[in-house]
Amino acid sequence: MADSEALPSLAGDPVAVEALLRAVFGVVVDEAIQKGTSVSQKCHYSIQKGAAFLGLGTDSVRVVKADERGKMVPEDLERQIGMAEAEGAVPFLVSATSGTTVLGAFDPLEAIADVCQRHGLWLHVDAAWGGSVLLSQTHRHLLDGIQRADSVAWNPHKLLAAGLQCSALLLQDTSNLLKRCHGSQASYLFQQDKFYDVALDTGDKVVQCGRRVDCLKLWLMWKAQGDQGLERRVGQAFVLARYLVEEMKKREGFELVMEPEFVNVCFWFVPPSLRGKQESPDYHERLSKVAPMLKERMVKEGSMMIGYQPHGTRGNFFRVVVANSALTCADMDFLLNELERLGQDL
Amino acid sequence: MADSEALPSLAGDPVAVEALLRAVFGVVVDEAIQKGTSVSQKCHYSIQKGAAFLGLGTDSVRVVKADERGKMVPEDLERQIGMAEAEGAVPFLVSATSGTTVLGAFDPLEAIADVCQRHGLWLHVDAAWGGSVLLSQTHRHLLDGIQRADSVAWNPHKLLAAGLQCSALLLQDTSNLLKRCHGSQASYLFQQDKFYDVALDTGDKVVQCGRRVDCLKLWLMWKAQGDQGLERRVGQAFVLARYLVEEMKKREGFELVMEPEFVNVCFWFVPPSLRGKQESPDYHERLSKVAPMLKERMVKEGSMMIGYQPHGTRGNFFRVVVANSALTCADMDFLLNELERLGQDL
Repeated sequence: MADSEALPSLAGDPVAVEALLRAVFGVVVDEAIQKGTSVSQKCHYSIQKGAAFLGLGTDSVRVVKADERGKMVPEDLERQIGMAEAEGAVPFLVSATSGTTVLGAFDPLEAIADVCQRHGLWLHVDAAWGGSVLLSQTHRHLLDGIQRADSVAWNPHKLLAAGLQCSALLLQDTSNLLKRCHGSQASYLFQQDKFYDVALDTGDKVVQCGRRVDCLKLWLMWKAQGDQGLERRVGQAFVLARYLVEEMKKREGFELVMEPEFVNVCFWFVPPSLRGKQESPDYHERLSKVAPMLKERMVKEGSMMIGYQPHGTRGNFFRVVVANSALTCADMDFLLNELERLGQDL
Repeated sequence: MADSEALPSLAGDPVAVEALLRAVFGVVVDEAIQKGTSVSQKCHYSIQKGAAFLGLGTDSVRVVKADERGKMVPEDLERQIGMAEAEGAVPFLVSATSGTTVLGAFDPLEAIADVCQRHGLWLHVDAAWGGSVLLSQTHRHLLDGIQRADSVAWNPHKLLAAGLQCSALLLQDTSNLLKRCHGSQASYLFQQDKFYDVALDTGDKVVQCGRRVDCLKLWLMWKAQGDQGLERRVGQAFVLARYLVEEMKKREGFELVMEPEFVNVCFWFVPPSLRGKQESPDYHERLSKVAPMLKERMVKEGSMMIGYQPHGTRGNFFRVVVANSALTCADMDFLLNELERLGQDL
C-alpha cells in the first residue's frame, strides 16, 4: 500500500524510494473482459508493459472483469483483491480507465474509488484518451469520481489535438513525490547555488533528462483557445460522432458494435454478399475479413485511414475515432459513402 | 550475462524476457572519479536513475575509477568486476561513455571491450553526446572500439543539432531483441492481418505507445545535408572550440580546467581581485562563487547562457559547449569579452 500519509518517511532513502516506486507502479489490479475460459484484457497494454519494464513481471497484473460495454465491474475488483490477498499478494494499485482505446468506455470511478478507499489502495486513472472530456460541461459527468484518484494520466495530444507528444501525469500528492522517486541530484546539471528558487527547476523529477518542453504546447493552446475554445473542440467531436452513428442507422450494411457513449464509433461494414446471412455458419469468419480488405483498399486508394481490430470474442470491426474537431458532417458522409463504394463488390 | 547467443532461447517467455531486461539493463558497472575517501561519479546520472527505475536499486551500480581526464581506467574496471564477483554479485553490463557531460571525455573503448570480452559482459556505450563525432573522418578515432559495443545510445539532437528530441539506440543484435523485450502484441493496435509485411510495424518494440516519429528528422536532415554536410557541422564545432581555447590562453583571467579533446571547454574565470591569489587559503572557496554570480549577471543582462558546475573536488567552473556550428569566431570573442565585462568588478 502506498498512500500519501505513508510517503514522507521515505524521503532521501534510496532503498525506500525504490520500494516506493515498486509500491506506486508495482502490483497492478486492472480490468478485462472474461468470457468463457479466455481472459481478454481491455485495459491499455501499457499497464502490462510497465509491469514488465519495472521488473515486476506481468504476472503481478491482475485483470478485473468488465461488463458488456467495457466498464470495470467494481464487485469483481473487490473479489480480485480478496483473491490476491488470499494468495499472499499485497495489492495496492488499481488502474481504472476513462476512455478505453477501442470502445471508449469510462469506468465507474466513484464505485472503484470506494473499493480503493476501503482497502487503502492507490487509485490511478488512465484518462489518456478520455481526460479531455473534463473540459466539457455537458459530458464531464463521464469522469465523475476522478477527483478521488491519487494519480491521473492525460494526453492533451489526443482529443484536444495538441501536437504529439503532450502527456500529463497529475498527482493528488503535494509532497514532491516525483522528485523523491526520480531525483538524482546530479550536481553538474541541477546546481543549487542559483540566484532564483531552485524548486522551479523541475528537470530532476522526471525519468528523462534532455527532452522537449511539451507542456508549453498545452499552455499556449489553452491561452489561445480558452476554456470555451477547448470545450468546443470536445463538444464538436461528440456532435460529429453522434451524427455518424445516426447516419449509419439510416444505411444498409452498417452494424454498430454498441451505441457509443464517447467518440469511438465501433461498427462492422457488412458487404452486400453477407447481408441477411447472419445465420450462416461462416458468417463471422467472413465478416472478420472484410475490415482488413477494406483497409487495404482505402490505403491503396489514399482516401482514408480507419483502424480496425478484433476485440474479445468479436471479430474485426472498424473503429472511427472522431477526434478532429475541424471535421464536418460532410466528412462523415464521405466516410460512409467511401466505405460503401470500396465494399460494393464484397 | 546476456550476450546475443544466449538470447534466442528466451523468446516468448515472459519470465525469461523479464530476466533479460534485468540482464541487459540491470547490474551496471560504471565509472567515477575516486579521490581520497569520496567517490564522485562522472558517468551520466541516467545510469543510476535507470537502475532505480527498473527496480534494481542504485546499489547495483558499481563505479569505476576514471583518470584525471575523466576516462575510465580499464584496470580498475577489471578490479571492480573481480570484487563484485567475490561478493556474489553477477556483473554483466559495462556502461562506457563517449563524450562525458562535463569534461567531454571519451573512454578507451578498445581496452574496455577487451575486459568485457574476457568476462562475457554486455558492453553499452553511452555516446549520447559524443556519438556524432563518428561522422568526422578527422575526429572519429576518439570512438575507436565502439564497433565492438553490444549497444550504443546516440542523440543526434545534441552535436548534429537535430530538433529535440532525436535519440537512437543502436544494437549489435539482429534477433529482434527489443520486440522480444517490450512486445506486448496488443491485438487492437498491432493487427497481424495487414496487406503488407507487419514486421515493418515497429511500434510494438519500444517502451512508449503514442509518440512522435523522431527518426524522421534525422533521416530528412541526413538526406538534406549529406555525410559531408554533417561532417562539416562536427568539424566546425571542433574548430570553434579550439579557437576559443587558444583565445583564452591569450587573455588574463581565464584558466582552463584541462586541455579539451572534444568541444567541451571547461574553465574558470578568475576575476581581477583573485588574480595572483592562488596561495590564499580562501581562494578556491571565493573562486567557486564567481561562476554563479556571473551566470546571474548574464541571465539578467540577457546576453548569454553558459552553464557551470562543481565536479569532483573542483569548485564551480564554466563549461562552454560549442555545439552550434552556425556560431562564428566573432561569437567566441563576444563570449570572452562579455565575461570580462560582467566580471570586471569582482
